[in-house]
Amino acid sequence: MWQIKRNKLDISKVLVEESLFTVGNGYIGVRGSFEEGYGSGDIRPVGGSYINGLYDRVPISYGEYAHGFPLFQDKQPRIADTQSCEILLDGERVDLASGRHFDYERSLDFKRGISTRKYHYKTALGKTAKIEFIRLASFWVKNIFIYKINIEYEGKIELRCSVCADVKNLGEGSDPRMSLLEAKLMDNIFLKQKSGKIHCLMKTSNTNIRQATVVDYRILSDTPGSIRHDIDRGTATTTIEGMRSISMEKRCFFTDGIRFSDPYDECVRLSEEYSETSFEKFLSAQADFLSAFWSRSDIKIDSDDGVQTAVRFNLFQILQSAGPDKYSNISAKGLSGEGYSGHYFWDTEIYMLPLLQMTQPGMARSLLEYRFKTLPHAKRRALELGHGRGASYPWRTISGEECSGYFPAGTAQYHINADIAHSFIQYHQFNADYDFLASKGAEVIIETARIWLEIGNFHKGRFVVNSVTGPDEYTAIVNNNYYTNLMAKYHLGFASALFDEFEDIENETAKASFEGLCNRIGFDKEEALRMKKACDQMHLPYDEELGIFAQDDSFLSKPMWPFSEKSKSLSPLLLHYHPLTIYRHQVLKQADTVLAHFLLEEDIDEPSMIATFDYYEKITTHDSSLSSCVYGIMASRCGYFEKAYDYFTESINLDIEDTQSNTKDGLHMANCAGAVLSVINGFSGFRIGPKGISFRPYLPKNWKSYSFMIKYRGRKINVSVSAVIKFTLLSGDPLPIRVWGKSVELKDVLLVDNETNER
Amino acid sequence: MWQIKRNKLDISKVLVEESLFTVGNGYIGVRGSFEEGYGSGDIRPVGGSYINGLYDRVPISYGEYAHGFPLFQDKQPRIADTQSCEILLDGERVDLASGRHFDYERSLDFKRGISTRKYHYKTALGKTAKIEFIRLASFWVKNIFIYKINIEYEGKIELRCSVCADVKNLGEGSDPRMSLLEAKLMDNIFLKQKSGKIHCLMKTSNTNIRQATVVDYRILSDTPGSIRHDIDRGTATTTIEGMRSISMEKRCFFTDGIRFSDPYDECVRLSEEYSETSFEKFLSAQADFLSAFWSRSDIKIDSDDGVQTAVRFNLFQILQSAGPDKYSNISAKGLSGEGYSGHYFWDTEIYMLPLLQMTQPGMARSLLEYRFKTLPHAKRRALELGHGRGASYPWRTISGEECSGYFPAGTAQYHINADIAHSFIQYHQFNADYDFLASKGAEVIIETARIWLEIGNFHKGRFVVNSVTGPDEYTAIVNNNYYTNLMAKYHLGFASALFDEFEDIENETAKASFEGLCNRIGFDKEEALRMKKACDQMHLPYDEELGIFAQDDSFLSKPMWPFSEKSKSLSPLLLHYHPLTIYRHQVLKQADTVLAHFLLEEDIDEPSMIATFDYYEKITTHDSSLSSCVYGIMASRCGYFEKAYDYFTESINLDIEDTQSNTKDGLHMANCAGAVLSVINGFSGFRIGPKGISFRPYLPKNWKSYSFMIKYRGRKINVSVSAVIKFTLLSGDPLPIRVWGKSVELKDVLLVDNETNER
Repeated sequence: MWQIKRNKLDISKVLVEESLFTVGNGYIGVRGSFEEGYGSGDIRPVGGSYINGLYDRVPISYGEYAHGFPLFQDKQPRIADTQSCEILLDGERVDLASGRHFDYERSLDFKRGISTRKYHYKTALGKTAKIEFIRLASFWVKNIFIYKINIEYEGKIELRCSVCADVKNLGEGSDPRMSLLEAKLMDNIFLKQKSGKIHCLMKTSNTNIRQATVVDYRILSDTPGSIRHDIDRGTATTTIEGMRSISMEKRCFFTDGIRFSDPYDECVRLSEEYSETSFEKFLSAQADFLSAFWSRSDIKIDSDDGVQTAVRFNLFQILQSAGPDKYSNISAKGLSGEGYSGHYFWDTEIYMLPLLQMTQPGMARSLLEYRFKTLPHAKRRALELGHGRGASYPWRTISGEECSGYFPAGTAQYHINADIAHSFIQYHQFNADYDFLASKGAEVIIETARIWLEIGNFHKGRFVVNSVTGPDEYTAIVNNNYYTNLMAKYHLGFASALFDEFEDIENETAKASFEGLCNRIGFDKEEALRMKKACDQMHLPYDEELGIFAQDDSFLSKPMWPFSEKSKSLSPLLLHYHPLTIYRHQVLKQADTVLAHFLLEEDIDEPSMIATFDYYEKITTHDSSLSSCVYGIMASRCGYFEKAYDYFTESINLDIEDTQSNTKDGLHMANCAGAVLSVINGFSGFRIGPKGISFRPYLPKNWKSYSFMIKYRGRKINVSVSAVIKFTLLSGDPLPIRVWGKSVELKDVLLVDNETNER
Repeated sequence: MWQIKRNKLDISKVLVEESLFTVGNGYIGVRGSFEEGYGSGDIRPVGGSYINGLYDRVPISYGEYAHGFPLFQDKQPRIADTQSCEILLDGERVDLASGRHFDYERSLDFKRGISTRKYHYKTALGKTAKIEFIRLASFWVKNIFIYKINIEYEGKIELRCSVCADVKNLGEGSDPRMSLLEAKLMDNIFLKQKSGKIHCLMKTSNTNIRQATVVDYRILSDTPGSIRHDIDRGTATTTIEGMRSISMEKRCFFTDGIRFSDPYDECVRLSEEYSETSFEKFLSAQADFLSAFWSRSDIKIDSDDGVQTAVRFNLFQILQSAGPDKYSNISAKGLSGEGYSGHYFWDTEIYMLPLLQMTQPGMARSLLEYRFKTLPHAKRRALELGHGRGASYPWRTISGEECSGYFPAGTAQYHINADIAHSFIQYHQFNADYDFLASKGAEVIIETARIWLEIGNFHKGRFVVNSVTGPDEYTAIVNNNYYTNLMAKYHLGFASALFDEFEDIENETAKASFEGLCNRIGFDKEEALRMKKACDQMHLPYDEELGIFAQDDSFLSKPMWPFSEKSKSLSPLLLHYHPLTIYRHQVLKQADTVLAHFLLEEDIDEPSMIATFDYYEKITTHDSSLSSCVYGIMASRCGYFEKAYDYFTESINLDIEDTQSNTKDGLHMANCAGAVLSVINGFSGFRIGPKGISFRPYLPKNWKSYSFMIKYRGRKINVSVSAVIKFTLLSGDPLPIRVWGKSVELKDVLLVDNETNER
């Protein structure tokens, strides 16, 4: 229930497993490649280690360049590879491809925060070794990655562990979802042995950000063994010899020049500070951290179909990948692979943050601070695009600079500005933290809101927003994308009401801070009124005949995608049809209008919402991994409970079962979050909005119960759904909540009959 | 009247003059760089020589690749540089940057088809040399480029002429109108001396097309001189020494592997075939050819403002750049530079061909045959884009493959298919050549017409065409671009009527040929009916309130471009604003809706046509060189005669005065044609359509008269406009024509009073 396991080594799946068994702590991530290698087979491991927020930059080439196209792209570089450690038994190298192993077992433990691997290995001499690995990326001291190897063998044991500073990032062919450019992103400055440790200083090739690694080998076995370091070009090899039993710990310290002015000094300092700390201490600190995490964020599911583990797996991966400071965020693949070059997208605000907001306000705030920190980039970018003012956040980035090389499904997705604002607003709704709103949130919200006045215009009494792309990238550069306009309306509404928001509060510091901000950025009531007018008159395309919201002004006039047998087989569409051919049809890569209704359902009448769901679901390919979870959540909302469960199952297993065939490139973090949201926002129907929080809980068929917690404005609320729906106010003042549309007062314990029926 | 001249050397303008003084014959083009170099200044000459239709291919990189993006781009390579010839006088190198020259004169002669340059040069010793150059690209034998140098000097004269096989194409920075990639496109296979000639065989680097050059030096002076050849790596230097007077002719033969299976053999053969032919013979053959050309195509203008020469200059440049065979076409810059990589665009069909169709049916047919020859590429491309059938011509190409690296202003411009069809239809209207229509034209027309059924669809009783880009690239990926739809309507109409077209003719061969075609490509009356239906129901966006045609469905709902002072100064827009910011405004790079009314005015009511002109003219930047001439022609049509003349003046001087500051990259061929069309289609109002030919002639203010000729269905008609309008049927049967909307019979001579008044 707290682990995913593998009891068999399938050599064809090792790259997928590298992603699945990644260990990370938000700062560092280490793919789960095998210390001892993959032996004689033709497996080329990826085995990358990454630091969140570290970036190099490579040029982007264009067949035809136009003004405002980014000239460079951030890339998350692979840092020094500290994973490898060849194992020799009586001089014979352990080779897993040979099939000489048995009793194989691998696990990723969400409660202990470790990954283990063990097996027996029969040598050519017929002797058997017992080999065991444990690894962790410490949540206690985020700069530390440790692995430990225990070997028992009646003979000579030799370990050849290495630290390789000669690393290159992967490149791949013509799949647009992978980066095209293969590049050496890190240069070695020095790699040396010092006081028995390996010291390595590197720098990113073009951005010249230094990154330090110190590796401390610790022999823990009783039998004395010899240890020897050899450094040859970019690789330091440490050879450890012993007899019968070796227990070796490799403790790796990582620092970077973004967070530390002298990362090397800091790295050495850290390695000294923790030199006396035992491995057991790291294990217990890890368990303590996770115990605290799960006590707030766990979702307990009692069911017979084993989904409990999968839900926890997805949630654990979010934890492992979430940047712990303002220098970092959550990349599309977390810290588990090189897909999408380690870039941060809207995924954070629309998928991961809604999850973290519920129970981890500190993590949520930290992720929002990253956006605040990069606001100056977004303001500069707005000017570069030709706008008079405001902020235009990059579609994909690490440093804060726009890195999208294809603007129709990049820069054109202006909705990211509303997505980010939405997340700041949601943070405010959860926490009522006026200091944060005044000092950071409001500036982001106002500057991004200004963009709508820049790109939109009043036409015949309506505010229209032309030439944008919505979340569904199978339609691009359209007018009045419903999702964009609905989000912009909400965004403008909140921004325009900021003066009111600060009017009645007692926090004078926040009030003064907000006033200072308005003076500094020239935001006044007159501008707020203009925002209000745009909000009020926002055009939301609706088709009276179909009774549904239109994805954009012209979407419904296009022909349906011809899902003939031949076409169907050519999936995903983006790999087989020119974008224009896809754009010209009613076909969706992912939820768009339906996603809007998940995020903002106030004022949407239910029949339209359901008709909209019905219409778009039929023409969505789910070629994006961001799609199924949203359809699942909205299937719950529309009362399609069985369908919701199918989407939920699809979502929780997407990576575990590698259903998109690209988990090898990294985990799909937005889907990981979406899988968990499928329970909280889906099955329990949780929503937060200007009017407070609400639920529409039901129990999926064959489940006995599920429960989870919500933190809301100083309160802790436990939600438990079984034959009855039970809300428990664990702490904080009573409050009104809405359950299935009815307002009720939550005070201590509230029981509601669970009478839902599937429609 | 038959020459452009320069009487002063302005060293800052030599690159512009290289383009202006290009000599070409449609097969080869040689930029007008100086044989003796530019001396000690920092001028880096371009000095390229090009063969029409020859191409190398280089990879296109994308920040993010998507299916159907071209992976390679054709490039017109520079071939061996045969222009250079250093001149030494008593050992002192002639250096024009030193200012030692006087009596400088340069000319390009449209009647003789030569370019000359002469000056006196004072050496450091104080002695004066008389130096003269004559060059021509032979229209008689298109593989030959010759230049001749005559020097008189009381002392030792030394010429160091070279053939350089180590050539590279230009690349340029961030101007999207220039190619981004600098590349070596030609490899030297051998360069040698043989029988006193220089033989050079090269090949394109990636496409491996061979290209041969043979250079024959001929000393024509009486005083015997010495001649010596040295070959050092990629350059063959021929040193010629003499006293007092040298007259040297450098005769260069060029062949290529596209047209000849063994281009080297052919090149050697040609050099032998013409070894006895005198320079004078080439001069007289050139003059004969041009005499024949001008006798048909000249536009005689009697006016005081000197426009006669400029009009002839523009027409002459079309002649120099028009590909003479099915292997080549007219590139955007002709053979005069490397802008746009030597690519062919829709420019040919919409600007150059309408001009050539009027008097040069052979040239016109040859250009159309290029499109027919590349039809298989276009059919393959249609499938690649995801269409079920039909042909989709490339937006830019040499070989026939799509080379556009930016599809929103490239592949999305589906109108090119109607543009090409329009030209085939126009050829048919001019020539009633049923054999050509049956054997070539119909196939192109039908296959391209099929594309409209692929990309369009019926919606609420109208045929709509979504996600395309019209001619105006300041708006992209829109629905129902008026130009595209009007052209598609016309195209579909003609294609659907092809069965009728062949029904009543007596040419049984053509009938059978058409029938064979229909069987081969599966075109039947049922499909023709579907085309007819799409034609009949074609949606042509119209705004009732404004009484104008809308550029597309949503164009008129966008805000106007803010032409504030600051914005105005940032011109052209494409170099200063992100495409999305431009797309989001009502602003045009070039004529779009207005162009449609030039090409197709049947069924357009005049008030709408004029209101449409008025509306769009105000918001057009003319950032494209294809714009002014069209606005000029339509200003004539709308009765804005003074305005028309302003546009005409702008157009004829665009290159001569380098008004777009990029003539150095090559001449703007579409504008060259448009400048001439401004007289014929503009001032005389000539149109050809399904109902025959028509005129609306008027005499621009201050002009005394103008006249030109039209060939139409076996007739030669002279049109002369002065105080009276005079049509003379020089040969052929009488015919009805329309003059100012009234049908009249043209038989021998027809006089019409010229009573036009400016509106």
